Amino acid sequence: MADMDLVLGVDIGGTSTKFGYIDRSGRCLGASAIPTQADQTPEACFLRLHEAARALWATLPGAHRLAGIGVGAPNGNYYRGTIEDAPNLNWGMVDLRGALSGYWGGLPIAVTNDANAAALGELLFGSGRGLRDFIVITLGTGLGTGVVVNGELVYGHSGFAGELGHCIVEYGGRPCGCGLRGCLETYASATGLACTARELLAASSAPSALRESAEPSALAVFAAAQAGDPIAREAFRRTGTTLGRKLADAVALTSPEAIFLFGGLAKAGELILEPTRKALDENLFHVFRGTVQVLPSGVPEDHAALLGTAALIWKELKS
Amino acid sequence: MADMDLVLGVDIGGTSTKFGYIDRSGRCLGASAIPTQADQTPEACFLRLHEAARALWATLPGAHRLAGIGVGAPNGNYYRGTIEDAPNLNWGMVDLRGALSGYWGGLPIAVTNDANAAALGELLFGSGRGLRDFIVITLGTGLGTGVVVNGELVYGHSGFAGELGHCIVEYGGRPCGCGLRGCLETYASATGLACTARELLAASSAPSALRESAEPSALAVFAAAQAGDPIAREAFRRTGTTLGRKLADAVALTSPEAIFLFGGLAKAGELILEPTRKALDENLFHVFRGTVQVLPSGVPEDHAALLGTAALIWKELKS
Repeated sequence: MADMDLVLGVDIGGTSTKFGYIDRSGRCLGASAIPTQADQTPEACFLRLHEAARALWATLPGAHRLAGIGVGAPNGNYYRGTIEDAPNLNWGMVDLRGALSGYWGGLPIAVTNDANAAALGELLFGSGRGLRDFIVITLGTGLGTGVVVNGELVYGHSGFAGELGHCIVEYGGRPCGCGLRGCLETYASATGLACTARELLAASSAPSALRESAEPSALAVFAAAQAGDPIAREAFRRTGTTLGRKLADAVALTSPEAIFLFGGLAKAGELILEPTRKALDENLFHVFRGTVQVLPSGVPEDHAALLGTAALIWKELKS
Repeated sequence: MADMDLVLGVDIGGTSTKFGYIDRSGRCLGASAIPTQADQTPEACFLRLHEAARALWATLPGAHRLAGIGVGAPNGNYYRGTIEDAPNLNWGMVDLRGALSGYWGGLPIAVTNDANAAALGELLFGSGRGLRDFIVITLGTGLGTGVVVNGELVYGHSGFAGELGHCIVEYGGRPCGCGLRGCLETYASATGLACTARELLAASSAPSALRESAEPSALAVFAAAQAGDPIAREAFRRTGTTLGRKLADAVALTSPEAIFLFGGLAKAGELILEPTRKALDENLFHVFRGTVQVLPSGVPEDHAALLGTAALIWKELKS
């Protein structure tokens, strides 16, 4: 019975690889994780993933059929099913779809990056349901982007469309892991927030709870901002301003109805949303005023990343 | 016979309104123009357009059927069929489709802005044939953008998608007609080129042929650059650099296979293409390297704008 179909969603990260079985309504019937061990070969990781996923399958209550596998991975390429030179994996070029086909032959297997998966999760299981044009921004260690146009995820000619994080916001600015300088993600991300806070601390002698630590983390900046610390609040204001300015560019290009913020830094709520909306509004061409909202992601927080990767397959089975 | 079907393409500009009858292969069977007279009512313009288009129709050799009307206009909205607060028309909100339906009842009538029309012209009759993802940049008095994703023009939620010209490249920079400061089109356009040349002349005392005029035009800068004038060449270099940097942002978002430059300033050829390509390459996230080309438009130069507006209807009749 088709109602018993499940999709294996897999989210490969630099540290851990999460996976789970998701039904067509976005319910997660079971989830687990293995360490990625990026210092070893990708094949070793995929072998352990296969074993762990089979073991988890055996524990699922009831009878099910596996309908496909959706994988989100850094620099995951949808067209080729590859992971291509992901900086935090250091595996070079990996034929991910080919490798998984060896374990799960005959099943549909689709690959993309985590931000594109998040956008598909929003489209199928979140606040993007029924919207034709929206953008998802994932704010974590870095900044990822998934763009939906006419109800379809944009992969572009290269398969890598949606890399707002590597648009330059300050020429000659902060060095980025990608080799460029001044990329948006070096400012608007958890890493960027912490860096901005440290710069503000160094540039003034104003008292701040953040001075208790030599290298305050994004989480420490969040806690201090919640407690009203002016330097922490200023760091959030600058982070949101930089993000909002660049979102204005994205709106000018594809004119989305909504921009959803997803991921760790998005959980800071109004601390990040308010300055982002303000800068977006101030830098928006007038024809777009009032046509776009900046909102927190509506994907259920538990297993959000897995819902997105599973959506890769559910979207294809639907259309 | 369907082969005798023609579309009336109309290109409404601040000074003149061009129109012509285009067949499905992109051949123009007859074209003419009327003064727009933007200081008078839009209704007066549409009445004169209808009379002139009927007179032109009567002169066409052979028997034809009018299949529809495609109109390109500044701030033309595809969804609503309107012209909305176009600065160089000063007509406020105009129900263009409604007005033309009064003269040509029962025919398909579609409206968009001139840059979107140029992109459709490229898709149907130019170098975009067979491409799924590309961007057209129109470089004239201002800078317009048409974005094609998955073989479809992107209108976005607002109907106004594709406004790279109003992305900010310098915060607090040159004032723009739209009310913002530092918009791309105040730098990368014929107007922007002339302004950059004048700034360079004021900032140095180096000899330049451009000093013969109090306010050298873009055309004068082009002529001087062709003759090797260093200030004129530097003005082109800066213009291309600014454009290429912003194109890198556009590539990061939708990953086109090609970016076509169209319009007056694009005719400067390598003077504008070379610095544009260089800046694009230098600011491009590495996954996009080698995936995108910057090329001159491939739409036949005669009646290029009319081919684009007619493509609005031909595209809909095709799909």
